[in-house]
Amino acid sequence: MPAAGRRVWNFSAGPGVMPEAVLRHAQAEMLDAAGSGMSVMEMSHRSPAFDAIHTASIADLRTLLAIPDNYHVLYMQGGATAQFAAVYLNLVGQGDTTTPVDYVVTGVWSDKAAKEAQALGAHVRRVTDTSADRHTTLPDAAALALQLGAAGHGDRGGKPAYVYYCDNETVHGVEVSPATAVLDHVPKDVPVVCDMSSNFLTRPIDVARYGVIYGGAQKNIGPAGVTIVIVRDDLLQRRVPAIPAMLDWSLAAKNNSLYNTPPTWAIYISGLVFKHVLAAGGVTAMEAQCAAKAARVYAAIDGSGGFYRGPVHHAARSRVNIPCRIVVDGAPAEALETQFLADAADAGLVELSGHRSVGGLRFSLYNAMPMAGVEALIAFMAQFQQKHGPPRA
Amino acid sequence: MPAAGRRVWNFSAGPGVMPEAVLRHAQAEMLDAAGSGMSVMEMSHRSPAFDAIHTASIADLRTLLAIPDNYHVLYMQGGATAQFAAVYLNLVGQGDTTTPVDYVVTGVWSDKAAKEAQALGAHVRRVTDTSADRHTTLPDAAALALQLGAAGHGDRGGKPAYVYYCDNETVHGVEVSPATAVLDHVPKDVPVVCDMSSNFLTRPIDVARYGVIYGGAQKNIGPAGVTIVIVRDDLLQRRVPAIPAMLDWSLAAKNNSLYNTPPTWAIYISGLVFKHVLAAGGVTAMEAQCAAKAARVYAAIDGSGGFYRGPVHHAARSRVNIPCRIVVDGAPAEALETQFLADAADAGLVELSGHRSVGGLRFSLYNAMPMAGVEALIAFMAQFQQKHGPPRA
Repeated sequence: MPAAGRRVWNFSAGPGVMPEAVLRHAQAEMLDAAGSGMSVMEMSHRSPAFDAIHTASIADLRTLLAIPDNYHVLYMQGGATAQFAAVYLNLVGQGDTTTPVDYVVTGVWSDKAAKEAQALGAHVRRVTDTSADRHTTLPDAAALALQLGAAGHGDRGGKPAYVYYCDNETVHGVEVSPATAVLDHVPKDVPVVCDMSSNFLTRPIDVARYGVIYGGAQKNIGPAGVTIVIVRDDLLQRRVPAIPAMLDWSLAAKNNSLYNTPPTWAIYISGLVFKHVLAAGGVTAMEAQCAAKAARVYAAIDGSGGFYRGPVHHAARSRVNIPCRIVVDGAPAEALETQFLADAADAGLVELSGHRSVGGLRFSLYNAMPMAGVEALIAFMAQFQQKHGPPRA
Repeated sequence: MPAAGRRVWNFSAGPGVMPEAVLRHAQAEMLDAAGSGMSVMEMSHRSPAFDAIHTASIADLRTLLAIPDNYHVLYMQGGATAQFAAVYLNLVGQGDTTTPVDYVVTGVWSDKAAKEAQALGAHVRRVTDTSADRHTTLPDAAALALQLGAAGHGDRGGKPAYVYYCDNETVHGVEVSPATAVLDHVPKDVPVVCDMSSNFLTRPIDVARYGVIYGGAQKNIGPAGVTIVIVRDDLLQRRVPAIPAMLDWSLAAKNNSLYNTPPTWAIYISGLVFKHVLAAGGVTAMEAQCAAKAARVYAAIDGSGGFYRGPVHHAARSRVNIPCRIVVDGAPAEALETQFLADAADAGLVELSGHRSVGGLRFSLYNAMPMAGVEALIAFMAQFQQKHGPPRA
């Protein structure tokens, strides 16, 4: 165990590492935020002090992603899981079982999104599903063009109300890259809905090409408990009345996310992160850092002579969630992986286990993970291999 | 304005004042919680460190309210507003427009709860509605007995799936007292659903007499963004499949509130508050403090010779939210109220305005407001009256 009071290198897939400067800021004003004489947790959500926090956070996010004026930015609750329902309920409406909705299924999260819509009555079409490859690939351009293209609508029962995809699958570690790889195949009059929970703010995006973008905060933004929804104004008109208020985008938009008490602390911390990212050069700088960190880790895996192996095909590899197996004699060595996790924790490197559904190791490299943490991980990987791996050829 | 770094007396109706000891605790371990080397905000919700926080918080709440074993304690998101929908969706099911559900409407929150159920298709019966009295009263026992009693079912189209009421109406300042005043009139085989958001943990309750109790945290518990739902196990069987996952009590129960990422920070702070209340003597001690504080404020109002007036009838007065008008020549003196708010803020007493829907003043006296704050308020009220009120007879 590291000495008390020492910060560990936290590779959690989320909730995950946050910028230390943000934590120190929140710590310093815990009892008196900005001269208010109270913690942000104690502020009325309708007070001028909280309004300033809320307003600045949205302005900063708009700057970071160059969000056009015809998009609303909403703070909602319930994580991506709540949005899985909200997407269908806002864009089609519960009880409409005929209007098709198209899902590009590339991992467990897009699969869950499709299932949730289906459970609520949606006519879900899985335009592609990489489960046969255990979600280690992405659909190729030709398949997407065929399935998503206008030409395909007729064969499949008409134009969908939307096309849904997940930009980065946290569990399986596959990321759509470039960001436009799916978008390029969707006809212009079909809105694209994108879950960016795990790669939010890791690269510039062209918001205008999306209908809806959302992301839970607990990976690249702030604490768990707030979800950011960026929605094009015209799509706010689609929802039907029988929708729970807390899932209703148009209600949130009309009330500036203050229909009821929002998760004020989570919004505050998110705002501090936005300011931190802006000061660090914005999403272009994040993209460069992200690429550099991922390149170092993949190089360590690929250069290990097969001791470390990433299951994901190269073209589908995520920059932020890197699954990895320790392989001996051609098979995953689970006992060694357990040893790896224990020894890493002793060295102050934590949350390196793969998702419980896939096992193995996983290295999450969100924005707040500095290169120093990545270097510490790589050094540890080399040491561990030297100690436990077969002699290198 | 108070000097920088000084804590104000915060009478906000929510989010509101929190125990200073809890804030200091959270501040101290912001960068390294319990030797984990990370903030609680950075902890994976599936880590042993967070599990310990989560488990302890539920155990402490069970102790505080003596919650029987056949009740689940759930952490959910979306505030009371999400539960307005969840109550109907879990206990009846969307699309069932015939099974009656009974609402005791005593203020804006029970009214909103009824409206949300109705919007989702519920067959809502308002067994009583105090809106004709501008929600300054509570229904009397005879009326409740008539409306809620088994004898009344036949006349009104059958037994309801549940009876719903709000224990304390935050905006109007009316509180059901004693806590059993509604319960005593509901037949034993009809589950009672109770919103205790604003008087949660302010007095002992007999949980076994309720089917469901819930409360948003941001008044007597912790930060906004988490809602506690206490639900009797047999009621978890009632829900129908077409319910958004984030509103599904049985899914939350099956997954120990970890179906997806919960609002970890809000749970952590809630747990700290539970420990704080336990150490301070539990809910019996809170009840005594609450009564003493409310008695002091009502005495100041009632003893002001009519300068300060509470609009709520005595028998319906809330112990935690006290609306108040400044009255001159028999009418509310809005200019004086504005002056009161400004002068009070200068004296370090803040968030004293009434809800925007009713105007006037409101003094919220949640558990974390110490008697010293109440004394400061009363002293200020006396000074203000001396300066601005008519000469006392």
